[in-house]
Amino acid sequence: MITGTTRLYAIVADPITQVRTPEVLNNFFAANGHDGVLVPMHVAANDLADVVNGLRHMKNLGGFIVTVPHKTALAALCDELGGAARSVGAVNAVRREADGRLVGEMFDGTGFVSGLKSQGHDPAGKRVLLLGSGGAAGAIAYALAQAGVGHLTIANRTLSKAHAIISKVQAHFPDARLDAAAADPAGFDMVVNATSLGMREDDALPIDTQLLQPHQVVAEIIMKPEFTALLQQAQQRGCTIHMGRHMLDQQARLMAEFMHGSAF
Amino acid sequence: MITGTTRLYAIVADPITQVRTPEVLNNFFAANGHDGVLVPMHVAANDLADVVNGLRHMKNLGGFIVTVPHKTALAALCDELGGAARSVGAVNAVRREADGRLVGEMFDGTGFVSGLKSQGHDPAGKRVLLLGSGGAAGAIAYALAQAGVGHLTIANRTLSKAHAIISKVQAHFPDARLDAAAADPAGFDMVVNATSLGMREDDALPIDTQLLQPHQVVAEIIMKPEFTALLQQAQQRGCTIHMGRHMLDQQARLMAEFMHGSAF
Repeated sequence: MITGTTRLYAIVADPITQVRTPEVLNNFFAANGHDGVLVPMHVAANDLADVVNGLRHMKNLGGFIVTVPHKTALAALCDELGGAARSVGAVNAVRREADGRLVGEMFDGTGFVSGLKSQGHDPAGKRVLLLGSGGAAGAIAYALAQAGVGHLTIANRTLSKAHAIISKVQAHFPDARLDAAAADPAGFDMVVNATSLGMREDDALPIDTQLLQPHQVVAEIIMKPEFTALLQQAQQRGCTIHMGRHMLDQQARLMAEFMHGSAF
Repeated sequence: MITGTTRLYAIVADPITQVRTPEVLNNFFAANGHDGVLVPMHVAANDLADVVNGLRHMKNLGGFIVTVPHKTALAALCDELGGAARSVGAVNAVRREADGRLVGEMFDGTGFVSGLKSQGHDPAGKRVLLLGSGGAAGAIAYALAQAGVGHLTIANRTLSKAHAIISKVQAHFPDARLDAAAADPAGFDMVVNATSLGMREDDALPIDTQLLQPHQVVAEIIMKPEFTALLQQAQQRGCTIHMGRHMLDQQARLMAEFMHGSAF
């Protein structure tokens, strides 16, 4: 039941009709007894600054989540950024402080790492091969370093992009052991696919799955299809597989607590 | 259930916690099978222009309702005003057109007249004495003229304010018969209290109730207390009484249909 005391939250996106955040977060608020409601706001890229300025002046707004195409643009509109957002240069959740200041953070990486932990795959001290060097890979590299990964290798066709992520992460975690190399899983405990390969049926595999070993964990961030070709072949090779949906489940809770300003 | 396809509506006010509009409108949407949600937005007077500019750029926004203290300021922020809003110089509901244009209208008066009709008190052709010359009185005068009132007399201590309302209403309805006079109910079919007298326990009566006749309808727009001193004394005199809440009930439906762009 929405009343005059209900705290307001939003998800800002374009397009908007496909977003699942309202169902997930409103169920989460209800389960935790929080008098809050999250609503969809359909905003074009050109209008983002106007809408964010409006949201800044809504005194009962807890915060808002953003997704495609606003994550990078929003970073420039916040008054303060968390470590992951600064490292990645993108934001997917904003908390509105009581004085109207907007604090942005990026939860793609911490959501992924929380998802790993929720399934018993704590990356602390492990050797991880990360495939890809886009925004998601950058966020995951940051979160893996934060979680104390033993050694992180980033594999990408364009090596300069992998090196760019490495220098940003090492600016925050100078002791983290990171390098860039080819996509060869030999010697790793875990392989993480942070490329978009696997979303479409005719996509190539992001790695030669014949090289996978049964002791390895193979993780996805792709949510549709849930059971990508990579996960299917990894399972056939005897690997432990980790679905993309765990990242979303954990991220919802992390973003809700961030916007709320404390744990539920 | 709020999803990515849910149409967004808001009520903008300061303070916000006391507003009843979310409950009333969300129940109305649900009862009419409309996939829409109305949420509270707490906005200070100084921030209204920024917030309205933000709302203008939310492509899934149907519209918004405003109440204290924004009704007059909002009129200047709309791209187009309906007749009642132009006459009164205030707005309490805004529809967002698909191209982002904001169309404002004032439903205080039409809500009151719809409330009268819903209780069998059609003012068409009737002689009505209207007490007060504030914003509510102006909106009601406009709506009574629009509804074909037979003769409308406005009674107010400051007669110039009553005359100001009369000229504004006559600009829209040149044939309406309106005048300003003392608060004497003799010869009227209906007496409408549009002053704030009656909200507080020690308020004076807005009229000498000894002059009321049993054939007269005595109407309030005050909602708390529901049974004002005026209504109590009018009932003792044998008059038919008409509660303030009928105005709110009807106004909710009218505003929902206005923001939706068509009847439900």
